[in-house]
Amino acid sequence: MDFSIQHEKIAQAVAILAEKNIDCWMTFVRETSHNADPALPLVVPFNLTWHSAVIITKSGYKVAIAGRYEVTNFERMGGWDEIVSYDQSIQPKLVEVLDRLAPKQIAINYSESDTAADGLSHGMYLTLQRYLAGKPYELISAEAILNPLRGRKTAGEIARIRAAVALTDSIIERITAYLKPGLTEKQIADFIHAEYKKEGVIPSWDAGYCPTVTCGAESPVGHVAPSDEYVARAGQTVRVDQGVVLNEYISDIQRVWYLQPAGETSIPAPVQHAFDSVRAAIMAAADLLVPGVQGYVVDDAARATIVAAGYPEYQHAVGHGIGRTVHDGATLLGPRWERYGNTPFGVVEAGGCYTLELGVQVPGYGLVSLEENVLVTDSGVEWLGHVQTEIMVVPA
Amino acid sequence: MDFSIQHEKIAQAVAILAEKNIDCWMTFVRETSHNADPALPLVVPFNLTWHSAVIITKSGYKVAIAGRYEVTNFERMGGWDEIVSYDQSIQPKLVEVLDRLAPKQIAINYSESDTAADGLSHGMYLTLQRYLAGKPYELISAEAILNPLRGRKTAGEIARIRAAVALTDSIIERITAYLKPGLTEKQIADFIHAEYKKEGVIPSWDAGYCPTVTCGAESPVGHVAPSDEYVARAGQTVRVDQGVVLNEYISDIQRVWYLQPAGETSIPAPVQHAFDSVRAAIMAAADLLVPGVQGYVVDDAARATIVAAGYPEYQHAVGHGIGRTVHDGATLLGPRWERYGNTPFGVVEAGGCYTLELGVQVPGYGLVSLEENVLVTDSGVEWLGHVQTEIMVVPA
Repeated sequence: MDFSIQHEKIAQAVAILAEKNIDCWMTFVRETSHNADPALPLVVPFNLTWHSAVIITKSGYKVAIAGRYEVTNFERMGGWDEIVSYDQSIQPKLVEVLDRLAPKQIAINYSESDTAADGLSHGMYLTLQRYLAGKPYELISAEAILNPLRGRKTAGEIARIRAAVALTDSIIERITAYLKPGLTEKQIADFIHAEYKKEGVIPSWDAGYCPTVTCGAESPVGHVAPSDEYVARAGQTVRVDQGVVLNEYISDIQRVWYLQPAGETSIPAPVQHAFDSVRAAIMAAADLLVPGVQGYVVDDAARATIVAAGYPEYQHAVGHGIGRTVHDGATLLGPRWERYGNTPFGVVEAGGCYTLELGVQVPGYGLVSLEENVLVTDSGVEWLGHVQTEIMVVPA
Repeated sequence: MDFSIQHEKIAQAVAILAEKNIDCWMTFVRETSHNADPALPLVVPFNLTWHSAVIITKSGYKVAIAGRYEVTNFERMGGWDEIVSYDQSIQPKLVEVLDRLAPKQIAINYSESDTAADGLSHGMYLTLQRYLAGKPYELISAEAILNPLRGRKTAGEIARIRAAVALTDSIIERITAYLKPGLTEKQIADFIHAEYKKEGVIPSWDAGYCPTVTCGAESPVGHVAPSDEYVARAGQTVRVDQGVVLNEYISDIQRVWYLQPAGETSIPAPVQHAFDSVRAAIMAAADLLVPGVQGYVVDDAARATIVAAGYPEYQHAVGHGIGRTVHDGATLLGPRWERYGNTPFGVVEAGGCYTLELGVQVPGYGLVSLEENVLVTDSGVEWLGHVQTEIMVVPA
C-alpha cells in the first residue's frame, strides 16, 4: 500500500492548522465503507469500522484512535505519534487523549456549504456531543482547514491528476477513430467502457452515466444514462462527458464532434458560432483564474460571455475542483446561488485543479459543450492536457 | 438499468411507515458519490449531485425533488407520483411539497446506533433545520423505518445474496486446490483477486484487506492487508476471510485450512479442539436465531460456548447483517457494548440475512475461524451456501 499522498496531506494539514490558528482537527468516523467521510482518504487510505478518531494538532502531533483490528494498518502506514486501540467503547480513550492535548477548539468535519467538508454524520455529531458533555472544547466546522487542504494539490496529487487526464486524452483520440453515423449513445458508451477496462481504470463517476453521451438535438442533457433511443447522425453533433479514476485521482473532460455529411465542406454556421462562443467563455474564465480571485468572478466572466453571444445561461458552475473526486470541494467557480452556499465566495489558490466547462444547445444540430481540466499556478492557468480549440470533424 | 430491487424496497417502505405509524420518510442528500447516504440505494439506484429529497409517505405517495440534470433518471426509473425539478435552490419546492403533504412527523436518516440509518450529514441537518424553521413538522430519526427496511430482505435481495455466496463457495474450492506450503499471504490474496477479476466481481470490502489472509500463529489478526511477511507452512493453519459484490449484493465468509505435514495422519488435538469449539459456538448462535429473539441473546450463546471451551471472548459481534454491504445495519447479533449502541437490543425478523462468525488463536498453529451466511426464516436458520463442518486438510 502506498501512503505517500496521505503523508503529504498530513504535513499540509499541520501547516494549515498553524496558518489558520486552529489547535486541533479531528476526523471522527465509523463504518466508512458505507458511510464515508470524504476527508478521511486525505489522511488515512483505508476504511475504518468501529468509531475511530484521527486527530492532528497545530503543533504537528498526530494521534489515531481505532478499534483493535485496525491498529496494524495504522502501524504499517507509519507517521503517527500515537496509535490508541480499544475494544468496547472509544469514549474513555478519546476523552483521555483530548484532555491531554487540551485544545481550545476542535475542528470537526461539517459544513452546510462544502460537501467535501461535511463527512460527519448527524448521529456521530450527537455521539460526540454526548462524549464531550461538560468539556470546555469548542467544536467548530473544519471548513477552514478542509477547503485549502483539498484545494491545494501537492506535487504527488498533481502528478496523478495529470496521468488521469493524459489517459482520457488518449481515449478521446480512440473515440474520434470509432465514431460514425448510426451508432447509438449506448454503443458509444459501451466502446468507452471497453477502453476503460483495457486500461484497468473505472469511470470518474457512476458507470451508468460516465460517459454521458449526447447525440443530436433531441437527446436530453444532464446526468443521464446513455440509451439506444438516440443515434449519431450525419449533420449532427456528438458530445461526450467522461473521466477516469487512475491511482485514486480523476479527470473530467467534455469533447464535441460534428458528423459531416458527404459534400459538406464547412461546419454549419450555428454549430461554429456555438463552438466559438463556448470556447470564448471558457477562455474568459481561464483569463481570470489566478490566485486570489473569488470563485464567482470567474463564473461571471464566462456567463456574461455566453449570454452576450446570444445563448441562455448554463444552469451550473463554470468550474469545480477535481482531485480524488469529480466535485472535489474547495472554492467553486460558480454563481452566487443558494444551493452553492459559500463556496463561490472563496478565493482561488495556487495548486487548485479545476474544470472549466459549459455548453449550449444548437437547435437542429445538438449539444456543443466543452470541459477542460486546469491547474492554477502563481502566473495563471496551466492546461492539464490537450485543449479542444476546434470542433472535431468526423466524415459521415 | 435495473430498478426492480428499488421498486420492491419502496413498496416495503410504505408498508413499514404504516406499520410504525410514521407519516413521512425523507432522504435528504447531495453529492452522494462522495458523501453517500447508505439508505439512498435502497430506493434510488443512481447518485444525486445537488440537494435532493426523496419523500415517501405512509399513504404511499412518492415524491422526488432533484436538480434539473437528474430528473431524467427519475423519469426512467418510474414509480414516482411526482418528480420536481429545480435550478437554484431546493428550498421553495421542498417547502411547497412538505406543506402540501402536511406530515406530523418527518423521519430523517440519522442514528447514533445504526450506521446504516445515519446517512444524513450534520451540515445537511443544519440546512434542513434552516429550511424548515418555523414549520410544525417534527423531525425524528428514521431508525425505526430503516432498521426493518434494510433488515427484511425481499425475494430479489435474497436471490442476489445467494448468488454472491454461491460464487464465493466456488472460489473457496479453487483456494483449496491452490494452497500449498511456501505461499505468502500476499500471493494467496493475489490469487483470489485474480479469480474475482475472472468472474467480473469486486471484493465485498476494501481490496487491500479483502481477502484477509492469516497464515500461522504469528500473523496479526484484524482488518489487515496481506503481506509477504507471513507464509503458509506445514503444520499450521491458513484462514481466509472474503466475499464478493455480485449485482450489488455481497457475501462474507471465513474458511480455515490445515496444512498437514507428510506422515501426520490426524489433525493436532489443539487445532481440532479449536475447530470443534468454534463450530459449536456458531451452532449455539444458529439454534437461537429465530424471529423475535433479541440480537444480544444470540451473541451471548456463542460467547458462553467459546468461553466454556476454554478460549477468550471474541472482541466483536457473532453476527452482522449482510446485504448491500458487509455491515448492513438492522439488529446486530452482538454484545451489549457501548460502541454498538442500541443495535444488539433489536429483535431479529424473518427475512434477515446475517453472518455467524468467530475464531480463536491456537498457539503454535494459527487462527481457527469460521464465518457462515444465513437467512432467518419463520422456522429458524437457512444456510445460504455451503457450511464448513470439518477443517479442510491440504497435504503439505
